[in-house]
Amino acid sequence: MGQQPHINGSHTLTGAPRVKITVIDYDATRYEEHETTCVEDCFPFRDTDSVTWINIDGLGDQEIIRKIGEQFSIHPLILEDIQNTGQRPTVEDLEGYIYLTLKMLQYQEKSHEIEIEHVTLIIGARYVISFQENVGDVFDPVRDRIRKDGRIRKFGSDYLAYSLIDAIVDNYFAVIEHLEERVELIEGEVTLNPTRAALGQINDLKRDMIFLRKSVWPLREVIAHLEQTDSPIIHDTIRIYLRDVYDHTIQVIDTLEIFRDLLAGMIDIYLSSLSNRLNEVMKVLTIIATIFIPLTFITGIYGMNFTYIPLLDWWYGYFMIMGVMTTIGLFMVLFFRKRGWI
Amino acid sequence: MGQQPHINGSHTLTGAPRVKITVIDYDATRYEEHETTCVEDCFPFRDTDSVTWINIDGLGDQEIIRKIGEQFSIHPLILEDIQNTGQRPTVEDLEGYIYLTLKMLQYQEKSHEIEIEHVTLIIGARYVISFQENVGDVFDPVRDRIRKDGRIRKFGSDYLAYSLIDAIVDNYFAVIEHLEERVELIEGEVTLNPTRAALGQINDLKRDMIFLRKSVWPLREVIAHLEQTDSPIIHDTIRIYLRDVYDHTIQVIDTLEIFRDLLAGMIDIYLSSLSNRLNEVMKVLTIIATIFIPLTFITGIYGMNFTYIPLLDWWYGYFMIMGVMTTIGLFMVLFFRKRGWI
Amino acid sequence: MGQQPHINGSHTLTGAPRVKITVIDYDATRYEEHETTCVEDCFPFRDTDSVTWINIDGLGDQEIIRKIGEQFSIHPLILEDIQNTGQRPTVEDLEGYIYLTLKMLQYQEKSHEIEIEHVTLIIGARYVISFQENVGDVFDPVRDRIRKDGRIRKFGSDYLAYSLIDAIVDNYFAVIEHLEERVELIEGEVTLNPTRAALGQINDLKRDMIFLRKSVWPLREVIAHLEQTDSPIIHDTIRIYLRDVYDHTIQVIDTLEIFRDLLAGMIDIYLSSLSNRLNEVMKVLTIIATIFIPLTFITGIYGMNFTYIPLLDWWYGYFMIMGVMTTIGLFMVLFFRKRGWI
Amino acid sequence: MGQQPHINGSHTLTGAPRVKITVIDYDATRYEEHETTCVEDCFPFRDTDSVTWINIDGLGDQEIIRKIGEQFSIHPLILEDIQNTGQRPTVEDLEGYIYLTLKMLQYQEKSHEIEIEHVTLIIGARYVISFQENVGDVFDPVRDRIRKDGRIRKFGSDYLAYSLIDAIVDNYFAVIEHLEERVELIEGEVTLNPTRAALGQINDLKRDMIFLRKSVWPLREVIAHLEQTDSPIIHDTIRIYLRDVYDHTIQVIDTLEIFRDLLAGMIDIYLSSLSNRLNEVMKVLTIIATIFIPLTFITGIYGMNFTYIPLLDWWYGYFMIMGVMTTIGLFMVLFFRKRGWI
Amino acid sequence: MGQQPHINGSHTLTGAPRVKITVIDYDATRYEEHETTCVEDCFPFRDTDSVTWINIDGLGDQEIIRKIGEQFSIHPLILEDIQNTGQRPTVEDLEGYIYLTLKMLQYQEKSHEIEIEHVTLIIGARYVISFQENVGDVFDPVRDRIRKDGRIRKFGSDYLAYSLIDAIVDNYFAVIEHLEERVELIEGEVTLNPTRAALGQINDLKRDMIFLRKSVWPLREVIAHLEQTDSPIIHDTIRIYLRDVYDHTIQVIDTLEIFRDLLAGMIDIYLSSLSNRLNEVMKVLTIIATIFIPLTFITGIYGMNFTYIPLLDWWYGYFMIMGVMTTIGLFMVLFFRKRGWI
Repeated sequence: MGQQPHINGSHTLTGAPRVKITVIDYDATRYEEHETTCVEDCFPFRDTDSVTWINIDGLGDQEIIRKIGEQFSIHPLILEDIQNTGQRPTVEDLEGYIYLTLKMLQYQEKSHEIEIEHVTLIIGARYVISFQENVGDVFDPVRDRIRKDGRIRKFGSDYLAYSLIDAIVDNYFAVIEHLEERVELIEGEVTLNPTRAALGQINDLKRDMIFLRKSVWPLREVIAHLEQTDSPIIHDTIRIYLRDVYDHTIQVIDTLEIFRDLLAGMIDIYLSSLSNRLNEVMKVLTIIATIFIPLTFITGIYGMNFTYIPLLDWWYGYFMIMGVMTTIGLFMVLFFRKRGWI
Repeated sequence: MGQQPHINGSHTLTGAPRVKITVIDYDATRYEEHETTCVEDCFPFRDTDSVTWINIDGLGDQEIIRKIGEQFSIHPLILEDIQNTGQRPTVEDLEGYIYLTLKMLQYQEKSHEIEIEHVTLIIGARYVISFQENVGDVFDPVRDRIRKDGRIRKFGSDYLAYSLIDAIVDNYFAVIEHLEERVELIEGEVTLNPTRAALGQINDLKRDMIFLRKSVWPLREVIAHLEQTDSPIIHDTIRIYLRDVYDHTIQVIDTLEIFRDLLAGMIDIYLSSLSNRLNEVMKVLTIIATIFIPLTFITGIYGMNFTYIPLLDWWYGYFMIMGVMTTIGLFMVLFFRKRGWI
Repeated sequence: MGQQPHINGSHTLTGAPRVKITVIDYDATRYEEHETTCVEDCFPFRDTDSVTWINIDGLGDQEIIRKIGEQFSIHPLILEDIQNTGQRPTVEDLEGYIYLTLKMLQYQEKSHEIEIEHVTLIIGARYVISFQENVGDVFDPVRDRIRKDGRIRKFGSDYLAYSLIDAIVDNYFAVIEHLEERVELIEGEVTLNPTRAALGQINDLKRDMIFLRKSVWPLREVIAHLEQTDSPIIHDTIRIYLRDVYDHTIQVIDTLEIFRDLLAGMIDIYLSSLSNRLNEVMKVLTIIATIFIPLTFITGIYGMNFTYIPLLDWWYGYFMIMGVMTTIGLFMVLFFRKRGWI
Repeated sequence: MGQQPHINGSHTLTGAPRVKITVIDYDATRYEEHETTCVEDCFPFRDTDSVTWINIDGLGDQEIIRKIGEQFSIHPLILEDIQNTGQRPTVEDLEGYIYLTLKMLQYQEKSHEIEIEHVTLIIGARYVISFQENVGDVFDPVRDRIRKDGRIRKFGSDYLAYSLIDAIVDNYFAVIEHLEERVELIEGEVTLNPTRAALGQINDLKRDMIFLRKSVWPLREVIAHLEQTDSPIIHDTIRIYLRDVYDHTIQVIDTLEIFRDLLAGMIDIYLSSLSNRLNEVMKVLTIIATIFIPLTFITGIYGMNFTYIPLLDWWYGYFMIMGVMTTIGLFMVLFFRKRGWI
Repeated sequence: MGQQPHINGSHTLTGAPRVKITVIDYDATRYEEHETTCVEDCFPFRDTDSVTWINIDGLGDQEIIRKIGEQFSIHPLILEDIQNTGQRPTVEDLEGYIYLTLKMLQYQEKSHEIEIEHVTLIIGARYVISFQENVGDVFDPVRDRIRKDGRIRKFGSDYLAYSLIDAIVDNYFAVIEHLEERVELIEGEVTLNPTRAALGQINDLKRDMIFLRKSVWPLREVIAHLEQTDSPIIHDTIRIYLRDVYDHTIQVIDTLEIFRDLLAGMIDIYLSSLSNRLNEVMKVLTIIATIFIPLTFITGIYGMNFTYIPLLDWWYGYFMIMGVMTTIGLFMVLFFRKRGWI
């Protein structure tokens, strides 16, 4: 995004074909962690009583997705949708599992761009499978809490799903902070110097906003649905957590709406700054022209070659006319000062 | 559409009178395909246990529509509406069949225009009748899947209807991709060179958007209704597919909304580019006039014909005055540079 | 409307006092038609088993309305509302009859204006009473179908009411077609020549749109209510017809919304055309002034009366200076060409 | 309102402390009317079987309100709210009475201002108490109808309440008519002469509109609530009357919305008139400057003091040059005419 | 807020670490008040039958919040949220208590800024705990009423909670009054003198509005929820009070909406004032240039050095030409007066 945001309307996938699979299996007493590229490695964990989190980085290998679908009896349509990275956040209660997609945002320090990654969660009774477009995510705090025997170890797969969603939504705040900085920066610039570049930046920001809204807005309904679902996978103890994420999502949406209004105001400022600048330019022109055009006319009069022109022959004629012109000029200056133009 | 989009508000039909009828009849084990211009040929398939898809290209022949209506007991009003190509997408559960209309969009490579075609589906328990305005559609993938014994052969008429709708919605993405290209093209142009032609193109695009919205927006409710209907024609196994088409429709609508915002932003850029350009023109005028008008005044002074004007008789007078004028000119240039106008 | 649209907010009625009453009484086997100015003539039809349509043109005679109200036991408030031509479309289920008002639009070929007429329908079990402001309506096709023993003769008063509403809504399409023509006409004009008259026309159209919206928009709910009412007057067989009118109403509303967007776009075009034109004017001024002001300054130099000015005494001085000025002029022209101003 | 509208957000009351109390007590057979400043005078009517209307002009005397509250067992909070004139229209079903507030609008002929007065109704089973800010109201027609033994005398307190509300809503139409006149007046002015005063007037109107909307908009819900309430105070026979007021309220809201759109259009016209005017000014400047600047340059050439300038010595030189300049001038005029500037 | 409003999107807390705890314990007969910094001091009040209000100023000490959470069995998530000052107003019915957050606004006389403070209420059966960001609040009237044995002493914790909310909402009116003053001040300024500073102030106000809306808007739902909740903590007698606060909240929102419209109108005025000013500047330039450029041309003609120029040798030539030029000048002035430019 940023300079060249993509309008994610395509069905096809341009992700890298390299796929990385990580399995974390835990219960209140123990935890183990595996990294593999062979999808079969994670099937044994399917039937354990412990909670299993299978994370798949990269959607390029259709075979892997097909195999997982088979093992965990996921509907073929869902498998297709996992690879449709242009899809909006959505949730569906299905036979034995919940299908949920959302957008992971990451601010790239280097390129000053916001990276949007499509994430799919398959939430089962005792497992969560997460599909990501690329390696690199915002789930490290969740992994740490599992490793360090945090509260998460005492709960089931629903709490794990909550933790993943919460990690993603928490990261929205970080992204928004960066946007906030950019908004403030541009705001200062626009008021002082309404360059075309500044307008370009406002429009880039607006564009970013539009894409963020598209990513975050539907999440509201998704989480509300998850909170109210009667699926046995989501336990009642988890609902308060989901409501908390819900509130955070609304907070993100509110902030985006505010940005939107601020940006609209900035375009107003920009346009009126342009007008102001034109006014200024025209004032300079008008002052100079209005003072000197009449004076030049007077010199023109005494530059005519008539046989007889009064004053011309008078020794002090020149000085008198210069005096008259100075008077006219001063009068003009006073007129402009009175009007507040100078 | 494109250059001269039609506002489809008319009741009358200007379609070609030539009508082409195609019948595809299949079940899990066999499939047959017929092309005819005689509507009676397809009546024998009505009472078979297999799924029958009757496709009618061209709405010009009222007799054919009347006969089909009689054979399949379709309400006379529905038969009238089939020919009202200006109608918005709609769905109705009726005695023994579902009536559904939607818009098929096709991007014409040659004319760079988007063609909107009105499509009506009559979905019965064991048949689907599709009415199109002209020959040429986006259903070939569906035909291929029937011929190649795809999953479709195992399902009933509801899945066939889903497949047809899905084919149409899938094609929206192709149309949107072309729009995306045009948006990007115009965007570059507008920033660099705000010609009147560019504004015309933005308005053409906006107009296309408005018509697309009109075509796609009501589809949302149509498919939602189809998914939630308690008609026995739609089986429960099909609902997940319908929900998938529903999600795609929302995705299309979202993208159109984004385009809409982008176009609104482009008009802002266009107008401010015009202002910028005026500012630039005025700056050039102001700089030239402000430098040379006072200098011309000075030459006017020494062009007057007074008997006595100081300096005139002095040998170096000319050079001194030229020096003074050069100084004034340079001072002006510095003034403008300080203001950032040069 | 058109040139001087009326804001119908008044309670009083300015209709003509002349009242014309037409009675059409029919069943499946026979039909009779009477025209009278004496309201008592139509009371005998009240208690027949056949369907009776009493049409009253002109709301000026309170006595007639009072008498009808008495005969058909219509609530006094409804009788008052019949004469309130400023009322918006509305529907009410009452004891023994349905009260329904809507707006009849007619395009006047001569004055190029859209005439809005307030129509009230009182739908009883075996009769329909229609009140119109003036003589002249869009109901002739309905009368023809009754006379020619059409489908309408087999149905009851509910179908008659439907037919009247349908005739009115069908006429909206004719009105919209005329608006469409005007929109296209103005569109061409605005782009080529942004005169103040064009803006006036856009605003007239916008105004017409606003009044049309006000007339059509509430009709949506009115017909939806009629379709879903549990009043015994509306039979189930009629619902499909009402739903059809409903769809047409939505189609009209959609088209008006599109017009609205198009008109908004036209104002953008108009304003930017004004800006463009100003830019053009300023360019001409700037080019001429920028070329000739410096040259005039040069002539001013050599017009000064100093004792010694280089070149003045030189025989070829004039030609040289003329050459210099030509060079400067050409250079300016090149500069402007490079900037794309010429 | 009008010139200096008040934003009624304050809790405190600035009404006059003088309080006038009027009691009208009636049933189908008799009626009596009292005016007093002593609140105790109206308590005897509380327990009669006839309908009692107590009208209180002036909210300045807290003691009176407290006493009434005690006598009619009104909740202390409601008593507080009666004096909060900034409150929006609202309705509440309470133990034994209905509490309802709305805004009474009156157009002041003298000051050309719209006066907003806060009115509270306490509707009991057999009484209505109305609180007004000041003496002077729109209830005279209701009083007349009571005095003249109108239909109102046959109904209970609910019909009285309806009559009061109806009188207030009916007066909205009068206020709107005045606004309509102002809108039309300003519209003519803006098109012909876009003075700053006209913009000021548009903004005053807009401001009035905003305050009217604030006053009228919530009334919609208030009356809808009243119509649908199951309070025993409102009888079923009254509902049709309430629905009628409801329709009138919607009509007022619709008209205000139309005004709003018209005013928005007028600002467009105003701004484009400004642009047009600038264009015109610039055209005059450009025409004059473009014709005479080049010609002045030519005179400058022949005003130079070179020893040898062609034509100067020729007897007809002057006439030839004058001819050349006339030709150039005419050519310029033709150029401008071709461009449609003259 | 005001000059540098903060976008409260951060999770972290920057409040002062100093924490002040105040306990007020009362019933209908007695009341006691304690101030402490040691959280354990307020636990004894937990199990009394009297109503206890624990107010905590400062959210910096996590330990205190943790201990309170433990003592009053508050969910850990709620404890986390108490410190998230960026959260929007929200309410939640939980096991044994109601969690409610809202924004306390205070206008700072000195800095002319609006201070937003995040307030959390934990409402239990017999206690209310209030958490504030800093010392200093709007609750003094509530404290006074408790001390002075007001109505509040007869009710339970739900009335206390209502009183606190009411105090906060009441203060919104004070804040709005200050905004109103600023709006009026700026309005006068903008019309007379559209400086860039004025636009800046409009934008500051707009920004303040946006933040206020964000703070107040969700409160509507919060109080509506509280009014309709079936939690045993809120008694039926309190609902009428809550409905009153609800009405006040709507009143605040309405006023903010009006401000919003007024500010939008002010930007229109600002921009058109800029245009007006440009028009004025251009008129001055045009008048001067149009009068003097042709005249200067005439002087140029008679300044040419042709051997023979008519009139030059004539003694009265000069006077005649001066007369001609005066005539032209006067004609120009008349022309401009006719156009209404002078």
